[in-house]
Amino acid sequence: MTVEWIAVDWGTTNLRVWAMGHRGVLAEAVSDDGMGRLDSDGFEPALMRLIGPWLQDGKRTEVVACGMVGSRQGWHEAPYRTVPCVPLDPLALVAAPTRDARLSVQLVPGLKQTLPADVMRGEETQIAGVLALTPGYDGIICLPGTHSKWAHVSAGEVISFQTFLTGEMFALLSQASVLRHGMVGDGWDEAAFDEGLSDALSRPERIGAKLFGIRAEGLIAGLSAAAAKARLSGLLIGMELAAARPYWLGQAVTLVGSEGLARSYARALRTQGLEPRIVSGTEAVLAGLQAARAKVTA
Amino acid sequence: MTVEWIAVDWGTTNLRVWAMGHRGVLAEAVSDDGMGRLDSDGFEPALMRLIGPWLQDGKRTEVVACGMVGSRQGWHEAPYRTVPCVPLDPLALVAAPTRDARLSVQLVPGLKQTLPADVMRGEETQIAGVLALTPGYDGIICLPGTHSKWAHVSAGEVISFQTFLTGEMFALLSQASVLRHGMVGDGWDEAAFDEGLSDALSRPERIGAKLFGIRAEGLIAGLSAAAAKARLSGLLIGMELAAARPYWLGQAVTLVGSEGLARSYARALRTQGLEPRIVSGTEAVLAGLQAARAKVTA
Repeated sequence: MTVEWIAVDWGTTNLRVWAMGHRGVLAEAVSDDGMGRLDSDGFEPALMRLIGPWLQDGKRTEVVACGMVGSRQGWHEAPYRTVPCVPLDPLALVAAPTRDARLSVQLVPGLKQTLPADVMRGEETQIAGVLALTPGYDGIICLPGTHSKWAHVSAGEVISFQTFLTGEMFALLSQASVLRHGMVGDGWDEAAFDEGLSDALSRPERIGAKLFGIRAEGLIAGLSAAAAKARLSGLLIGMELAAARPYWLGQAVTLVGSEGLARSYARALRTQGLEPRIVSGTEAVLAGLQAARAKVTA
Repeated sequence: MTVEWIAVDWGTTNLRVWAMGHRGVLAEAVSDDGMGRLDSDGFEPALMRLIGPWLQDGKRTEVVACGMVGSRQGWHEAPYRTVPCVPLDPLALVAAPTRDARLSVQLVPGLKQTLPADVMRGEETQIAGVLALTPGYDGIICLPGTHSKWAHVSAGEVISFQTFLTGEMFALLSQASVLRHGMVGDGWDEAAFDEGLSDALSRPERIGAKLFGIRAEGLIAGLSAAAAKARLSGLLIGMELAAARPYWLGQAVTLVGSEGLARSYARALRTQGLEPRIVSGTEAVLAGLQAARAKVTA
């Protein structure tokens, strides 16, 4: 196999790499060497552990990486670009310092917004990927996750965006708060999800009162773990949708993300009369990195 | 000194005990042997480590304890009583099994509400204390904390109550979420608290959008740790007040709690035109336990 270049998605908790050939992915690998557990000297070795077998002596292989690897605490800082702007400018890629002569590493800068203050790292590449997969797309791109993003895209540029802590709040509340006691077990109760969602969307000012109710119903009314988890998810996604309404109301929405989470957001948006399109997160990030690289080498 | 009886406030994380004489507190002690780190055999030894020196051979000393010690995972279950009811019924105290013949331990039951489902353990004693300190009090009692409670009290009974995760969410978001990176350091910015409070109260549907903004402003606009912490507190307390509006609007409000937190809630309520009274949490719990015991022994 001939590895033409290497695509890298390097977040806070995970490192994912793909060996790319002329016709697409040749091989892939993943590790938990996320940015969060590495100091600046640790990035090149962490990368080499995964891609070493793909490199050839006497040849420099190009690596294009997006995500927190380009943050100040990452391998090397790739300063934010400011919206409105195209999501990914190949001329703005920043070279990371390397020791191994077989490596050339380019980092994708994140985006920032001045008012309201906001930042993203990694999602700009997925947005570029959606645009590469759907030339001329005009509308909203929603990227659910630990820190969900909503971006307004028009004429090839990111006009504005907004970040929500939804995924992180779900993890903290379901695993580290008093609510965790009622969430042990598998299963998912769609009706409870819909109920939480509807509560949060129709009466967002009551959300604060609904959260502890999950624990109380578990204690005195036998609420199941499947219903407790799904209701919490519905409440938090509803809280996000209530705040993101200016983004999605009456708009075309593309969801980017993993199967389960994107499906929950799609279900939520359908209750509001929307028919979102879903693009897989992997497909989007690869298309974005590919687009960056194609322009660089063109 | 003659120890007449022993008052105990036994929560999830702390154990506090007071040696009581005819004229009030003779001595006090505290440990971190909360309910959360004890199994059912561990309660009596944990209590004895603090009160052992206060007991007399050949005499049985009465101990009255409130809080999570009476939960199913506690020393012995004191089943919830259902509102509307008086906050503390001396006839409903439940004896805990003891080995040491010098001990007689009575546990105060918590309260539950069927619809909307809710529970409390420990706060019912503080509510009873407020009523003992203010006979005939009619109005709202707010008990800020890890799990803040709002209770409507009338004709000596708790009519309804509502619990909020505000304190726990503040701890999780400020110490365990991505926001923690911008919260290292001392200080408190009152103006930032007021701003967060006002945002949450006037536009509760936007709260989800405001949380990540704290991190983003720290990254790109130099938001201080003092402002970040205070704004998060303001947003979360505002979220609570928005949901608790049916409780406080146009009502007399008594705040029960520790200095700093009660002061923040008082400041928040004053922006809404209220003039809350503040009762210390310790004073309230002691008055409540005293009232329970006075009736038992009367």
